[in-house]
Amino acid sequence: MMRTIRVQLGAASHDAHVGANILDELGNLARAAGLKPGSCAIVTDATVEKLYAARVEDALRKSGFAPVVISVPPGEASKSLAMLEQLYDRMTAAGLDRNSVVFALGGGVVGDLAGFAAATFLRGVPIVQVPTTVVAQVDSALGGKTAINHRHAKNLIGAFYQPQLIVADVATLATLPDREFREGLAEVIKYGAIMDAPMIGDLERDLDAILARNPALLEQVVARSLMHKAAVVGADEHESGLRKTLNFGHTVGHAIEASAGYGSYFHGEAVAIGMVAAARLSSKYAGFSADEASRLQRLIERAGLPTAMPSGWYSDDFLRALALDKKRTAGAIEFVLLDRIGHSLTRSLSFDDIMSSVS
Amino acid sequence: MMRTIRVQLGAASHDAHVGANILDELGNLARAAGLKPGSCAIVTDATVEKLYAARVEDALRKSGFAPVVISVPPGEASKSLAMLEQLYDRMTAAGLDRNSVVFALGGGVVGDLAGFAAATFLRGVPIVQVPTTVVAQVDSALGGKTAINHRHAKNLIGAFYQPQLIVADVATLATLPDREFREGLAEVIKYGAIMDAPMIGDLERDLDAILARNPALLEQVVARSLMHKAAVVGADEHESGLRKTLNFGHTVGHAIEASAGYGSYFHGEAVAIGMVAAARLSSKYAGFSADEASRLQRLIERAGLPTAMPSGWYSDDFLRALALDKKRTAGAIEFVLLDRIGHSLTRSLSFDDIMSSVS
Repeated sequence: MMRTIRVQLGAASHDAHVGANILDELGNLARAAGLKPGSCAIVTDATVEKLYAARVEDALRKSGFAPVVISVPPGEASKSLAMLEQLYDRMTAAGLDRNSVVFALGGGVVGDLAGFAAATFLRGVPIVQVPTTVVAQVDSALGGKTAINHRHAKNLIGAFYQPQLIVADVATLATLPDREFREGLAEVIKYGAIMDAPMIGDLERDLDAILARNPALLEQVVARSLMHKAAVVGADEHESGLRKTLNFGHTVGHAIEASAGYGSYFHGEAVAIGMVAAARLSSKYAGFSADEASRLQRLIERAGLPTAMPSGWYSDDFLRALALDKKRTAGAIEFVLLDRIGHSLTRSLSFDDIMSSVS
Repeated sequence: MMRTIRVQLGAASHDAHVGANILDELGNLARAAGLKPGSCAIVTDATVEKLYAARVEDALRKSGFAPVVISVPPGEASKSLAMLEQLYDRMTAAGLDRNSVVFALGGGVVGDLAGFAAATFLRGVPIVQVPTTVVAQVDSALGGKTAINHRHAKNLIGAFYQPQLIVADVATLATLPDREFREGLAEVIKYGAIMDAPMIGDLERDLDAILARNPALLEQVVARSLMHKAAVVGADEHESGLRKTLNFGHTVGHAIEASAGYGSYFHGEAVAIGMVAAARLSSKYAGFSADEASRLQRLIERAGLPTAMPSGWYSDDFLRALALDKKRTAGAIEFVLLDRIGHSLTRSLSFDDIMSSVS
């Protein structure tokens, strides 16, 4: 079984398929999406390569593709200009042309790096996102944001470039380490918080089975999340309005990631703390009930995610990171709040407002 | 006086202004196009910087922009990943944000490099093209093609990214060295050859005054060329069909550039030879009259451009370069021919066909 979500983006419209073990259908799905067989590249990282590259190669070969595997070291450090240059070299050596497909097999790092390489190789070759982490499946694979890091800032260099297809095989989540699995749930909870109140109820009911990685439930949760993201991105591809609501929990989250040193908190963990802070600010500035704030916090806790910074945490670095936020204008930050579970709004808040919510 | 061409590209539609000494109006024109004043960058090369950067800075400052000048060495070698990285560094150091405008002041190299940097900095910041060479004014500034080179291939890395505005000051052509001026005329003649027969007659009549750089005539010729390019690009932004006709003379031209070593022939010179070869092939395969082929060749000669490779020229390198052409499929090349002056068509030609036309 497989669920398909249509991402409506005019000429860049495409499908996102979600299902268990659909990795083996990747070649067929790519052909059905109109992609040309022949030379192609599978960009992945060393960890995912060991687990799934051979299966993906087989799946592509049986549909007439001739893949080369390009593997990068796992981790955020691979989102660099130096690694990008290596990708270009290997794509050139593999003889890729304008119709050659790049398959991004892995998590957010692989998706961002391979996506940006595809966006810029020969002024753009087709990219298929094959996400293998919860974060990538429910969030980063969809929406066309691609990027690499600059030593001064994360995702400083990038492009909006839509994939031709997304194939999210939830069976690959079985091999995900526990911490990576749980961080992804922060993004899932986020969709419920900002746009789908019944989803929060369902997550409360199903969380134990989800944590046990029940494939049918994973398929349901990933598809529901992607459906929400597709609706938002379809309405606002370049983040000029509605898409900003997806930043719920992310303003504080990004500042935590940056100030704690990238890597000490996983992205989803920082977002979890950020969502709790945003819920508190929502109660103060948007009439969000304290009961609902507690309810959201309990769900986040049950998912095994942090809800506050440790004591002794030094706030000057955090403030500096917040001051560099891309969404800042003249001392204030455009902040996503909730007025009730399932409904968001934005307010301009000062640094002091925000600091009071996290310390 | 100033002529304005509207480039129709849906949401990416924008104006191209052509006139003498409109450099001094750059700030006003940018504001009128809706661009936000404040921090911005002028990307240029050392040669153009000396001639025009101060004037452009003044023009921007008096409209509320706060420009930093980022200068690169002149020449094709600046279209590198290393130079791009320096641009990112300097754009970051200048504190540019998502609304900050990049002004590309110079020829094709500056336009391509600054355009690609703008396309990828913070996933895209606004770019204004301010071309100062004939090639850039009549061709490369319009159409959104941006790129840098890879050691294996020219323009291997790039993006389609439309400018917000083009400001072509024909008075800047007065300082252009003679050889650079003449190479630009190859692209001008091309528009006449493929889509505007009366333009060929006008060029025959006005060529001496154009070579003397009469500003009124330059304005006319640049505007007419841009109007043609705008029509083609507006109908086919991503070069899936009609836009390929702009490659008239370029298939052979690119192979000449690559096989002779970049720099031995200027782009326009190689295109001039390529057009004469294409005219010969047109007579053989598309019923183009020998008289019209001679007429086109005479005009190219009068513009001071080469029409054939020197004797003793070694053709194996040329063949190899042609075999790497992006437009190849299975041993044949999609080639733009003329059936009469002012009207083009495409035919699939073999290597042998093409070789016979240039040797």
